[in-house]
Amino acid sequence: MWVQKDITINNKIRAFHLITDDIVKSPPEIKNFNIGVLQPFMRHASVSLTINENTEDRVRNDFEYHFNKMVTEGNQYYIDTIEGEDDMSAHLKTSMLGNSLSIPINSGNLKLGMWQGVYFCEHRNDVSERIIKATINGE
Amino acid sequence: MWVQKDITINNKIRAFHLITDDIVKSPPEIKNFNIGVLQPFMRHASVSLTINENTEDRVRNDFEYHFNKMVTEGNQYYIDTIEGEDDMSAHLKTSMLGNSLSIPINSGNLKLGMWQGVYFCEHRNDVSERIIKATINGE
Amino acid sequence: MWVQKDITINNKIRAFHLITDDIVKSPPEIKNFNIGVLQPFMRHASVSLTINENTEDRVRNDFEYHFNKMVTEGNQYYIDTIEGEDDMSAHLKTSMLGNSLSIPINSGNLKLGMWQGVYFCEHRNDVSERIIKATINGE
Repeated sequence: MWVQKDITINNKIRAFHLITDDIVKSPPEIKNFNIGVLQPFMRHASVSLTINENTEDRVRNDFEYHFNKMVTEGNQYYIDTIEGEDDMSAHLKTSMLGNSLSIPINSGNLKLGMWQGVYFCEHRNDVSERIIKATINGE
Repeated sequence: MWVQKDITINNKIRAFHLITDDIVKSPPEIKNFNIGVLQPFMRHASVSLTINENTEDRVRNDFEYHFNKMVTEGNQYYIDTIEGEDDMSAHLKTSMLGNSLSIPINSGNLKLGMWQGVYFCEHRNDVSERIIKATINGE
Repeated sequence: MWVQKDITINNKIRAFHLITDDIVKSPPEIKNFNIGVLQPFMRHASVSLTINENTEDRVRNDFEYHFNKMVTEGNQYYIDTIEGEDDMSAHLKTSMLGNSLSIPINSGNLKLGMWQGVYFCEHRNDVSERIIKATINGE
């Protein structure tokens, strides 16, 4: 049994956002699967998806701080600079965190751990609508 | 054909551990699949899974060294500090390495390369039981 | 419906290479799937796969520069050194970027975003033939 649909995320500011509810509600068909896998795929090269701690805003703030420090913005050695200082660093962060997830489904529910949530990571300053293509496969 | 089961990893010390055998033995049903994919998913936000070199302990020691150096523990700028100095750094390492894998199955065997093994990466000092939810899909 | 096959990448120099066409052409069966997922899996511990910007060579050059700077080659503290200065750093880069991808298929086409392409990331100096095992599952 296969389901595939687009999840639209509208204009979230540059930051790490918790979007677990969007991932679950947008494809409500998750509840029809006894065993399966949900695979959200980000269709952009400057935004990433990751799974991490789901309760503290502080954790997501520290993610933004850490990645800004680890991946220097406007590094003088970068040669890809025409789209702004945040462009090349956004590409690097995206590949370090990854652009897709694979989450098990059991008895109609995502089997995230108790402390896990889905992060939408916007790495650009000028944000826009972002599309996640979600594929569900199971029985 | 779908199989889903939990693999329990008991109290491994903070380090990068080779667990390829646990991944294969715990779901012995792998041998029943002609073509398919095994997807192990770590249900914790401070432990990661990755695939890398499978023979030298030295490689895994250097992973621990490198990630400790690249992701500073107890960084004074972190605001998420109430759970200890190793907490925020563990979250960051987890997202950089990832919490799930996707490994092809052919003729009843995982098709890892000759030099590849599965790493269980415990990033916390006070360890506890960890659960990996493994989903196998194939024919 | 399942398809699994090997994609051989021959002797590409140490760099980030765009191989989207190889991924699509090598399993031409992609066009037979209405909904599905393509999962390329790199069978080596010193080469990685990632998805990023698909038009500018400059972006891929900056990836090579950034990862060389972030993951020091021949670090004096590494103890895994017998295979050369580029060996341990290649292992670390591979786990940071990942060795597999999961790409949605719809109506016979990979649903990469407009600006996304597949990168083959060779991290060793002495290159050799590399094998990607690609699994397609869908209907």
